Amino acid sequence: MNFTIQNVLIAADDAYATVDVRVVDGKIAAIASNLDVVGTGFDGKNKLLLPGFFNAHTHSSEMWQRGIMSVFPLELWLAELYDFAPLDTEKVYLSALGTAVETLLSGGTSVVDHLVLIPGQEFETIATAVRAYKEAGIRAFIAPLIQDESITAGIPSGELAQTHEPYFRSTAATLEIIEEAVRQFHCPDEGVNILVAPTGIQLCTDALFEGCIELSDRYNLCRHSHLLETRAQEKLAQEKYGCTAVEHLKRIGYLSDRTTLAHCVHLNDADIAIMAETQSTVVHNPLSNLRLGSGIAPILKYRQAGVNVTFGCDGASSNDSQDLLEAIKIGSILHNVTDSDYQNWITPRQAVEMASLGGANGLNLADKLGSITVGKQADLVLYDLTNLSLLPRTDPIGLLVLGRPTNVVDSAWVNGKQIIADGKVTTINVDDLRQELFNRSQWETKRKSQSVAQIETHYRTVMGL
Amino acid sequence: MNFTIQNVLIAADDAYATVDVRVVDGKIAAIASNLDVVGTGFDGKNKLLLPGFFNAHTHSSEMWQRGIMSVFPLELWLAELYDFAPLDTEKVYLSALGTAVETLLSGGTSVVDHLVLIPGQEFETIATAVRAYKEAGIRAFIAPLIQDESITAGIPSGELAQTHEPYFRSTAATLEIIEEAVRQFHCPDEGVNILVAPTGIQLCTDALFEGCIELSDRYNLCRHSHLLETRAQEKLAQEKYGCTAVEHLKRIGYLSDRTTLAHCVHLNDADIAIMAETQSTVVHNPLSNLRLGSGIAPILKYRQAGVNVTFGCDGASSNDSQDLLEAIKIGSILHNVTDSDYQNWITPRQAVEMASLGGANGLNLADKLGSITVGKQADLVLYDLTNLSLLPRTDPIGLLVLGRPTNVVDSAWVNGKQIIADGKVTTINVDDLRQELFNRSQWETKRKSQSVAQIETHYRTVMGL
Repeated sequence: MNFTIQNVLIAADDAYATVDVRVVDGKIAAIASNLDVVGTGFDGKNKLLLPGFFNAHTHSSEMWQRGIMSVFPLELWLAELYDFAPLDTEKVYLSALGTAVETLLSGGTSVVDHLVLIPGQEFETIATAVRAYKEAGIRAFIAPLIQDESITAGIPSGELAQTHEPYFRSTAATLEIIEEAVRQFHCPDEGVNILVAPTGIQLCTDALFEGCIELSDRYNLCRHSHLLETRAQEKLAQEKYGCTAVEHLKRIGYLSDRTTLAHCVHLNDADIAIMAETQSTVVHNPLSNLRLGSGIAPILKYRQAGVNVTFGCDGASSNDSQDLLEAIKIGSILHNVTDSDYQNWITPRQAVEMASLGGANGLNLADKLGSITVGKQADLVLYDLTNLSLLPRTDPIGLLVLGRPTNVVDSAWVNGKQIIADGKVTTINVDDLRQELFNRSQWETKRKSQSVAQIETHYRTVMGL
Repeated sequence: MNFTIQNVLIAADDAYATVDVRVVDGKIAAIASNLDVVGTGFDGKNKLLLPGFFNAHTHSSEMWQRGIMSVFPLELWLAELYDFAPLDTEKVYLSALGTAVETLLSGGTSVVDHLVLIPGQEFETIATAVRAYKEAGIRAFIAPLIQDESITAGIPSGELAQTHEPYFRSTAATLEIIEEAVRQFHCPDEGVNILVAPTGIQLCTDALFEGCIELSDRYNLCRHSHLLETRAQEKLAQEKYGCTAVEHLKRIGYLSDRTTLAHCVHLNDADIAIMAETQSTVVHNPLSNLRLGSGIAPILKYRQAGVNVTFGCDGASSNDSQDLLEAIKIGSILHNVTDSDYQNWITPRQAVEMASLGGANGLNLADKLGSITVGKQADLVLYDLTNLSLLPRTDPIGLLVLGRPTNVVDSAWVNGKQIIADGKVTTINVDDLRQELFNRSQWETKRKSQSVAQIETHYRTVMGL
């Protein structure tokens, strides 16, 4: 799969250069003017080439409930979500494909799927997601979502004594599932990675975190988790540990330069210093944080402290899309209201770097991915700059990040393999996918969640509502 | 142009109904099951019909600078904008068409264009916008942007004595231009409306506001203005009037039930009460307010106080798009972080009502537009619910508002005339428009604004940066 893109715009310092880019054996082999065409030639005229972005946090099966979840904060939203979660692997397969397609068509070439496991079919769920992502051709980081406490334990007790049902599966059994998945599927060279990914301090014991650390060290796995998404979790950490969640995770050794943490909304300055010191990565999910009313993550502070930040869409039930360009736009401009000094605001070029190199950094792959550099893997996206949504011609990266680009991805390659050509995904049949998603769903309006009914009064009391 | 849409989903109470909708002579004539087809028949199966939305505040010619403006707060951004504003009517024509197309393709059937006038060609600018909107077929509310003070007067003086160049055109001459435009073009029955639209208290004398009130009363015109977009304007109002801008506008009589005010970010509780009492309308431009770091408008407070709220894209240089669905989504979910009680959050159905009936209300047309009601004008949009971005099937309005719908407008009608069919604008040639926008522009990176260089030091001082 060798190819050469001719006369394409790439970012160069504070401007653009028109160059040829040659890819040989899945790697960027040369970037220069007037290269001889090796392999297939692509016309890059009026097109922009960028490194593929990372959709660095999502939950693919939430696609089945997008558009219908109540306007709730996380804790109630989660109760409703789980009451209606899909329980068959065919649905898992289709929503993983859908997540891949929407990510690819918005500039992403990698996805971190914090994958919700079907109880009793945990291993099959992981195997299904692996199959879907391999078929789609997107680079996959599958982070099976695990916990060992029941959902009600995720809400602070407040003044009240609370008891919770024990979780239905033992910590040891959970860790065994992950280890088996690693043995069978973890194959970075083939674009499939397994991550350890306890859901977060709100639903996990230290034993689970420690088991994950042990697996991560033994198999060289990246680590993922949610972190301090809501005010309720901030309270809960104090109840549980008598310190912040960040302090606790540092103490038990979960934070590292291959740890990505989704949300990070409610961190104080000392926490931010710990994030920097441990070289942990923040995955910013701006749309989800707004939709669930979680708050505005202090992204400008992270950047000033030297914390690596990248973007995620989060699951499609709290977004309710998988469009990375939308997440990048809102995740950039949202923070302008948090700091009156515009010299600290995120520029479009910085946003692109956060979405590409920032993601690669968090997944410990900055030497292989995240920029258009000779020697790196060819995870590349070619944007058509003649689309109405990117006209008139001004600054291509500014238009892409700050506008609302529609149908602008002309081509995409993962590891040098073409996944999108002429604006269409080439690896799977998207019309068939649409038909399947249509057939397996129906128009619905409001549903009644039993779990929400059970916990809402307690939630309102403890949160002072 | 009579037609009947068969078997289409419409919103009905808290659910959906499948109905036929008959349009005769530009008006909705019947809504029921199993109507006889009158005129052209349209298949509404797997489609959702909604009233057309209002893009209730924009500046069309800003399209020429989208994607390239520096990340600046309003006052500096405006200085840069004006240094590079397009100065020929052909560009005005093309950007008005572009604004119409993007609005239509995102569910809008009406646009309020706070139109920047080319100095010395003011009347021609207005005539050009009228021509473009008539050709596109969108319902147009042209609000020529006028001022009678120079741009430096828009920044608070602080402790410093400041003098400003007099504005190049007299207040009387400006009002004459507006009156002539009203005489020639104001024709609501043909879908063209002229509004009085001083840019805002920051650049207008009371004489200009009072002249506009007089024209508004004499010709029955709606009134438009920017209001308290930035912290700087809040300071400036105190310097200028010794009271808030809202108190001052009430005192001089500008606020009314046909006054729409863009932004309204920095209002206090007493101001909000005045907005409710005068039945003024807030036009919320969430993307622009984030992009320029203006702040988060207190939209939930407006709703609780009974103030009518609708949405705008604002000009494409501060957004940088004209996609109403994006503005509606962000303008809904953004406010969840301002109030921890989710019972106050905006639901997708409420957002749709704000974008349709809210716009009609603000323009004093709620008896004629803004809902699917027998007797109202047929400004209607038909959405294709089989698009991947709206699948799997869940709650159609939830998907449309909270997702990122792409290519979902199947058909649109304004006053019963079809403007979009099969997803394509039928009134103008969009490929030709693209080509013209392409030909008249070039890839640019950073530019150097002389005006910004002149005012930045003062701005930073007075704003305490």
